[in-house]
Amino acid sequence: MSRKQKPIRSDIAWSTPDRITVRNRDLPSEILGKLNLGDMAFLELTARLPTPQESVMFNALVVTLVEHGVTPSALAARLTYAGAPESLQAAVAAGLCGLGSVFVGSTETTARMLYEALPEGSGEVDLEALAKETVSRMRAQGAIVPGLGHPLHKPIDPRTPRLFQLAAENGLSGRYVVLMQAIGREAERAAGKSLPINATGAIGAICCEFGFPWKIVRGLGVMARAVGLVGHILEESQNPMAIEIWQRIEDEASAHLRP
Amino acid sequence: MSRKQKPIRSDIAWSTPDRITVRNRDLPSEILGKLNLGDMAFLELTARLPTPQESVMFNALVVTLVEHGVTPSALAARLTYAGAPESLQAAVAAGLCGLGSVFVGSTETTARMLYEALPEGSGEVDLEALAKETVSRMRAQGAIVPGLGHPLHKPIDPRTPRLFQLAAENGLSGRYVVLMQAIGREAERAAGKSLPINATGAIGAICCEFGFPWKIVRGLGVMARAVGLVGHILEESQNPMAIEIWQRIEDEASAHLRP
Amino acid sequence: MSRKQKPIRSDIAWSTPDRITVRNRDLPSEILGKLNLGDMAFLELTARLPTPQESVMFNALVVTLVEHGVTPSALAARLTYAGAPESLQAAVAAGLCGLGSVFVGSTETTARMLYEALPEGSGEVDLEALAKETVSRMRAQGAIVPGLGHPLHKPIDPRTPRLFQLAAENGLSGRYVVLMQAIGREAERAAGKSLPINATGAIGAICCEFGFPWKIVRGLGVMARAVGLVGHILEESQNPMAIEIWQRIEDEASAHLRP
Amino acid sequence: MSRKQKPIRSDIAWSTPDRITVRNRDLPSEILGKLNLGDMAFLELTARLPTPQESVMFNALVVTLVEHGVTPSALAARLTYAGAPESLQAAVAAGLCGLGSVFVGSTETTARMLYEALPEGSGEVDLEALAKETVSRMRAQGAIVPGLGHPLHKPIDPRTPRLFQLAAENGLSGRYVVLMQAIGREAERAAGKSLPINATGAIGAICCEFGFPWKIVRGLGVMARAVGLVGHILEESQNPMAIEIWQRIEDEASAHLRP
Repeated sequence: MSRKQKPIRSDIAWSTPDRITVRNRDLPSEILGKLNLGDMAFLELTARLPTPQESVMFNALVVTLVEHGVTPSALAARLTYAGAPESLQAAVAAGLCGLGSVFVGSTETTARMLYEALPEGSGEVDLEALAKETVSRMRAQGAIVPGLGHPLHKPIDPRTPRLFQLAAENGLSGRYVVLMQAIGREAERAAGKSLPINATGAIGAICCEFGFPWKIVRGLGVMARAVGLVGHILEESQNPMAIEIWQRIEDEASAHLRP
Repeated sequence: MSRKQKPIRSDIAWSTPDRITVRNRDLPSEILGKLNLGDMAFLELTARLPTPQESVMFNALVVTLVEHGVTPSALAARLTYAGAPESLQAAVAAGLCGLGSVFVGSTETTARMLYEALPEGSGEVDLEALAKETVSRMRAQGAIVPGLGHPLHKPIDPRTPRLFQLAAENGLSGRYVVLMQAIGREAERAAGKSLPINATGAIGAICCEFGFPWKIVRGLGVMARAVGLVGHILEESQNPMAIEIWQRIEDEASAHLRP
Repeated sequence: MSRKQKPIRSDIAWSTPDRITVRNRDLPSEILGKLNLGDMAFLELTARLPTPQESVMFNALVVTLVEHGVTPSALAARLTYAGAPESLQAAVAAGLCGLGSVFVGSTETTARMLYEALPEGSGEVDLEALAKETVSRMRAQGAIVPGLGHPLHKPIDPRTPRLFQLAAENGLSGRYVVLMQAIGREAERAAGKSLPINATGAIGAICCEFGFPWKIVRGLGVMARAVGLVGHILEESQNPMAIEIWQRIEDEASAHLRP
Repeated sequence: MSRKQKPIRSDIAWSTPDRITVRNRDLPSEILGKLNLGDMAFLELTARLPTPQESVMFNALVVTLVEHGVTPSALAARLTYAGAPESLQAAVAAGLCGLGSVFVGSTETTARMLYEALPEGSGEVDLEALAKETVSRMRAQGAIVPGLGHPLHKPIDPRTPRLFQLAAENGLSGRYVVLMQAIGREAERAAGKSLPINATGAIGAICCEFGFPWKIVRGLGVMARAVGLVGHILEESQNPMAIEIWQRIEDEASAHLRP
């Protein structure tokens, strides 16, 4: 095989026997005891430390998605733990696998929509007109405008105003937030029903303010939920529900088959 | 089926259309913008806020395990992402699945050993004698004392002194840290070779100071690594290595078979 | 909460203390020793036994995807096993997570394309014209025609003629196979380069002959690869490569960073 | 870094542009259309084809574990699919993650116990005495004898007699099966209660007859369940239960918290 090798390279971290360096910072002396977990995530993603304002906002974005009760994701983690309590990591992994297009993935879809409508570095544009155009193009394609509406949180998602308030207070409420809000109003007008921006819509827009690539936006929800799932597994180990759920559902689901 | 149902109950969170409450705190007004991600994890696990000292120490424990370069776990995530870039969550999940007995799991084994040697609420004991007894019992069973030694970080793991320093500065260096240090010395003496406490040993001991159940100690590493894996996936999306690794390994692994 | 409950129902299996019934067949007496694993999979998916011809073809479809050497999926499983050898199931799970849009998922995309072009139960149509129309519509949308071309297997994928031969011999080479072949020719003509039908294209077309919903077509590859991954993990347990891969890649990837 | 590289080698498969060879057999001409999925699994694991008797028995072992109704593993897969229907592979992966020590893992524990009691190639031994010794040693250690008893299938697991019958009919009922049966009787006697051999116990013993390493025995259950989970996901896509389960459990679990 005469295939030419391509170089393999990672810029994130390196270790020697007496050192561990992450994003060019000495882990023991420059990171431990100095950075909180959210700031460490920011350092991982951007190769720099957040400003104090960015730290507040970024931590808030991630914290928003840590916990939302006994979700399908928490249930999958608990049911997995019941079968393999020696593999906590696999239970968390199982819970994460469902953070796809239906739930947390809408942060990504929102960010992608906003970047496609308004590429980074674009010159001045009429954001209201851009919102109209975006909504009408999506409706023409039969696509759902992401980041709007919520099955439970009506008429408004209580996380959204708080996230936008934090964005405003911390200098992270720019054109993408304005565009998202205009898209929300326009989608409501076009659909003729209330479609308030939900938490994933707000997070997607603020991620664009940070300049995060849309491909990684879902990752904020994934790391957040990993934290929440450990909490659910702790509770499952102390006050389990998985076996009871199994037995109830099994009984009901197959009742029509059993003799 | 006349099976009697057992109640299903979770104390972590609840939602109504206009509220989301986590551990008895209103998410938008009492958590967002106020808690960093590590403090949120602490709240999830303990149902209370950390003190400032606990916040520093807990964040440091988790931050320690976020990143250690291109580990097997990072490689598994990157190789998975290469096949399913539309499912970032599944790539993180794949990376987490390997955080078992060989790597991050030793935090759990350490905590378990320490709790079994010194149950919470034990009266005064001679920790040196307890360390001797613990090491000799484990050696008699052919068990490896967890949390000691490191294939790369020799003669000392640079994270360990920093973690113990932070524990001392923040009032979290009590009997479990002392016991772990005594166990380390005793294991070195018995084995006749250098066996410094590694980062997972230090983390396991400090988790005991916090009183975390040993069953959940591995969870700190799991949530931490979820953060780090998102960083690796971002880099993979921008500067990929997975396909090159595959081709090199495939070429070499099957060279002896190919005609 | 006055939410009205919806019924929960599964038609797959039921158990009582002395019986286990799957798809209306007694597992011990009617299935064990009588059905091979592929036939059991067919029974799961269709609630009936395959004919002898269907059995040959269905087993061949799945067997095709069991093994393709040290793939990214096999590597992810091996790297995971190295960290958590006590959780073989999690290593297989990690390996499966990457069977997405880039690799095995193209079976699904092919089947979806064919069903959308030619819905089940359609009347007589000119398949050549339909192929032209399908390819030109996809090209206009900038979409890649799935199931064509292969980075390694050129000029033809050696699995494809064999799968189509088996389809012909077993009465499963109908309009979807013909349409797929016409699409392949048309895509080659339009692209001006060789684009032979690859194994996933052939499998997708034959799945349509079976009438499998496109949403489940990827599942054949997933069950197949689970089999193959167990083989790789067995070899990894006996003749490991994961740690060596890690060390080589880590060394190379961070060489430019280390002092 | 002057680390010496170790060779990387896999004996399973190789490919060139026009060939794919698995375990030294040409995939298109020697495997497709000739081997059923269970035989292919056997080839993967043993690098040889099964005899007709081995084929019946091996397929039966795996088929036994494909389906057992709406298990925790099936529920985890369904709940995951509800959140990420575009990632069927991740839903199967989530379902597999729970096949640990509590459920399918007991096949492995049984095989390990039997091999440790009676290493392969041992000379003639008194199996009744060996069973007594094994049970009494395990009881002294506080260990549970694996492969015995079942929460639902009482007084006997209906799969066990059928599996042992197939083993006898196919020349695979040797010393390990006899030893397992003796261990079962002895454990019943010692415990003073009915402890019939369950399906995982029978499978573990027959795996020893095949000579499979105990580390891979759980893998039979993992590949089997991957098949069954695809069946559950198909049904979930057509007649879903995941969202209803979520809403019921969420309502009940947090009722005591909501105002």
